[in-house]
Amino acid sequence: MATQDLASHLAEQQGAEDKLYNQVALRISELIEHGTLRPGARVPSVRKLSEQEEVSIATVMQAYRVLENKGLIEARPQSGYYVRARLWQAPAEPEKSEPPLRATRVNTSELVMRFMQAARDPALVGFGAALPSPQLLPTRQLCRTMAAVGRRSPQLANRYDVAPGAHELRVQIARRAMATGCTLAPDDIIITCGCQEALYLALRAVAEPGDTIAIESPTYFGVLQIIGSLRLKACEIPTFPRHGICLDELEKRLDCCRIKACLFMLNYSNPLGSCMPDAKKARLVEILARRNIPLIEDDIYGELAFAPERPKVAKAFDRGGQVMLCSSFCKTLAPGYRVGWIVPGRLRDRVQHLKYVTSVGTATLPQLAIADFLANGGFDHHLRRLRRLYAEQLERVTHAITKYFPKGTRVTRPTGGYVLWVELPPQIDSIELFDRALEEKISVAPGPIFSPKQQFRNFIRLNCGAPWSQTIDQALLKLGQLIARMM
Amino acid sequence: MATQDLASHLAEQQGAEDKLYNQVALRISELIEHGTLRPGARVPSVRKLSEQEEVSIATVMQAYRVLENKGLIEARPQSGYYVRARLWQAPAEPEKSEPPLRATRVNTSELVMRFMQAARDPALVGFGAALPSPQLLPTRQLCRTMAAVGRRSPQLANRYDVAPGAHELRVQIARRAMATGCTLAPDDIIITCGCQEALYLALRAVAEPGDTIAIESPTYFGVLQIIGSLRLKACEIPTFPRHGICLDELEKRLDCCRIKACLFMLNYSNPLGSCMPDAKKARLVEILARRNIPLIEDDIYGELAFAPERPKVAKAFDRGGQVMLCSSFCKTLAPGYRVGWIVPGRLRDRVQHLKYVTSVGTATLPQLAIADFLANGGFDHHLRRLRRLYAEQLERVTHAITKYFPKGTRVTRPTGGYVLWVELPPQIDSIELFDRALEEKISVAPGPIFSPKQQFRNFIRLNCGAPWSQTIDQALLKLGQLIARMM
Repeated sequence: MATQDLASHLAEQQGAEDKLYNQVALRISELIEHGTLRPGARVPSVRKLSEQEEVSIATVMQAYRVLENKGLIEARPQSGYYVRARLWQAPAEPEKSEPPLRATRVNTSELVMRFMQAARDPALVGFGAALPSPQLLPTRQLCRTMAAVGRRSPQLANRYDVAPGAHELRVQIARRAMATGCTLAPDDIIITCGCQEALYLALRAVAEPGDTIAIESPTYFGVLQIIGSLRLKACEIPTFPRHGICLDELEKRLDCCRIKACLFMLNYSNPLGSCMPDAKKARLVEILARRNIPLIEDDIYGELAFAPERPKVAKAFDRGGQVMLCSSFCKTLAPGYRVGWIVPGRLRDRVQHLKYVTSVGTATLPQLAIADFLANGGFDHHLRRLRRLYAEQLERVTHAITKYFPKGTRVTRPTGGYVLWVELPPQIDSIELFDRALEEKISVAPGPIFSPKQQFRNFIRLNCGAPWSQTIDQALLKLGQLIARMM
Repeated sequence: MATQDLASHLAEQQGAEDKLYNQVALRISELIEHGTLRPGARVPSVRKLSEQEEVSIATVMQAYRVLENKGLIEARPQSGYYVRARLWQAPAEPEKSEPPLRATRVNTSELVMRFMQAARDPALVGFGAALPSPQLLPTRQLCRTMAAVGRRSPQLANRYDVAPGAHELRVQIARRAMATGCTLAPDDIIITCGCQEALYLALRAVAEPGDTIAIESPTYFGVLQIIGSLRLKACEIPTFPRHGICLDELEKRLDCCRIKACLFMLNYSNPLGSCMPDAKKARLVEILARRNIPLIEDDIYGELAFAPERPKVAKAFDRGGQVMLCSSFCKTLAPGYRVGWIVPGRLRDRVQHLKYVTSVGTATLPQLAIADFLANGGFDHHLRRLRRLYAEQLERVTHAITKYFPKGTRVTRPTGGYVLWVELPPQIDSIELFDRALEEKISVAPGPIFSPKQQFRNFIRLNCGAPWSQTIDQALLKLGQLIARMM
């Protein structure tokens, strides 16, 4: 990753001036970028740099962890940190998106269901669904925890858990919310069947059929399916691949369309991987509060920052209870447990009633197992490992794209999460590519499912949730060949 | 229970002529009713009756099991069957319900949420929510099964289980459907988060805001909440406490209101406990098929028949795919697992998409644990025990009502399930009773939550899902005193 990317990333991440380790990391990354520190060279020892920069040992350690997560340096046991060999230039990023100005109906359900059913086949090399690889998750440990909870208090584990959900879990979620900049009480939180139900309930709570919802362009297809199914309209907001939606363009649309609510993924959006700087989030919340428009915030990837500290949520800047924060443990712990949550703000009672109406409550035992894991299982330790692995996997897939995909391919450079948004040469039809890849037992997510009007015809999203392997390398080579043949 | 009740029950249960054991049971029950066999008397031995009636030993055994479940006879070890001492007369049943003729909006959400939140308190004596007592369920065994499934294949257990849901479970549900009179393939079934989500998806699939849904009067309040939340209207159909809705009255309303769909609980309805005879079900399906009106069938209590064989479902008579069968394991196995299902008939694709939109999928491990239990855990053995216990519990609570409640109280006589619908003297306000009982740490379900217009002011529903105990006896005594004080 080029220095300017890192610099911009660091600046975005938090007001960089108060984060010493970011400055130190930036200094070293510049030395690497300018060739002062060449691939294979040893970077200054922690002690030496600490003296030289007049910062603590801990600060240097943290700076080196940032650089390690970004793939710029690597630790060699008993020997210190070295500059990683990187002899390739990452491709350019896609440009700002240009959706139509008007609100539109969504009609992609057939394509999405075809995609989802195809993605279920376990025999595929799965670049399709945005799934963490089960190998990377503490699946066995969670199963053991669940068994222990069940043994300890079987009656508790089998009780009807009517909304708002298990108190134990809500306590843990509230505790962890501090890292997102929020102060939450357990009663602010309602447990849901994954983030999808949280988003579904939020949209039902704020909108009626015919209403218009502002979304990012491109946006996660699951959100588009809710919007279509509830007979809402979507107003797409142009986005930058790094910082997410363009606030000026948002304001323009707020002025001309009758936007009922916004639904945005501000941290490591899907599929873009963009992350809105915290200061920009504050401005967004302020813009919407002025107009009394609720913001539904999908933070499902927020914990998967590559930097040591996760970004804040927009909810952290919310004064009037207008931000409805949605998230889940599906991307970090347990896709199969279907445990998510919503912080509905001032619409709490309405959302709780809707949750009751829709599914009464969420399965109890998975909630208790996750609560126990959060309290005692080393979630932060697990997250640190996961972030490092995802950063590495994104880097490896990007490198393979550089080698195997045609010239002119553009790729995003996310600073968190595990998906890449790939712009192929303009003549490539990604739905055709999707079908051809399926025949080769490879799944990809075609661009048109991320847009109400099936734009992004020549884009694909690649899931990088699985550990790098020969199979993945070969599948990317094959994809590159398929694309070349379609040109 | 009087002979005429048993006779009517048996006639309802299935075309009695082809069920020899029902005839034998009826014969013996008549001998008891007429005093030929007095309380404490030994009934003829199995062998003797088999010779006398010229039927097989198995038939007599089954007949005695019916009588035992009904509480008429009891087995004494090493000694045979004896007539149970029953020195009390059960109260009269409520009469046919008389709802308003017009379709109405539902507005009971506040009352229901107050009721549901109150019912959550584990310190209460719980006649409120219709819950099976965890002690009666194979909770430990299910937990062990879940742990074993998780150990055996942790990756499988943590996979994203997108609709239609775990194949293993759908195979087991299809296998069991034979007893309901249906021939189903696993792909006919979609797994849901409990029966509530199944009903929710079914209503979303068939109706638009403003449409009218025909329901039973009284009807389960969870259904009313869905109807209200989706801005539908409810048209209540008069019901008989034993056989459920009056088909003539239904036809009248089908002719004058524009009914978009029907949602009925034909087997052991909640709160009535009524069970529609199978022949009447066939007629119902035929009436609706002629008018091309879908029937959403809630069979959540269907497995809890007190007779040895469960009644059929209306789906068994469905030729055109117009019946949408919904059920769950919440009442028989695991309230906390939130595993239900729907057989959507010809609207399968639409329901599958709606399930995806609403919550993507259902938690995987609870599905696999239940599938394993159904395959290997002795579900039928468990059900037989459960049916016997529920029949006994209903009988005990009915007896206590006879002793403790004021004269004029009426009570239903369900032939399955575990709730009683109690009509109190007309001057009793059951919402006031609900509040006063809460102060005494007793929960009941007030009648008005079972009606869109808050009718049934002097009715309560009593959950009899918990094993009989001194506490329950005392709570019923207390309830009787509270009611007496309100007169």
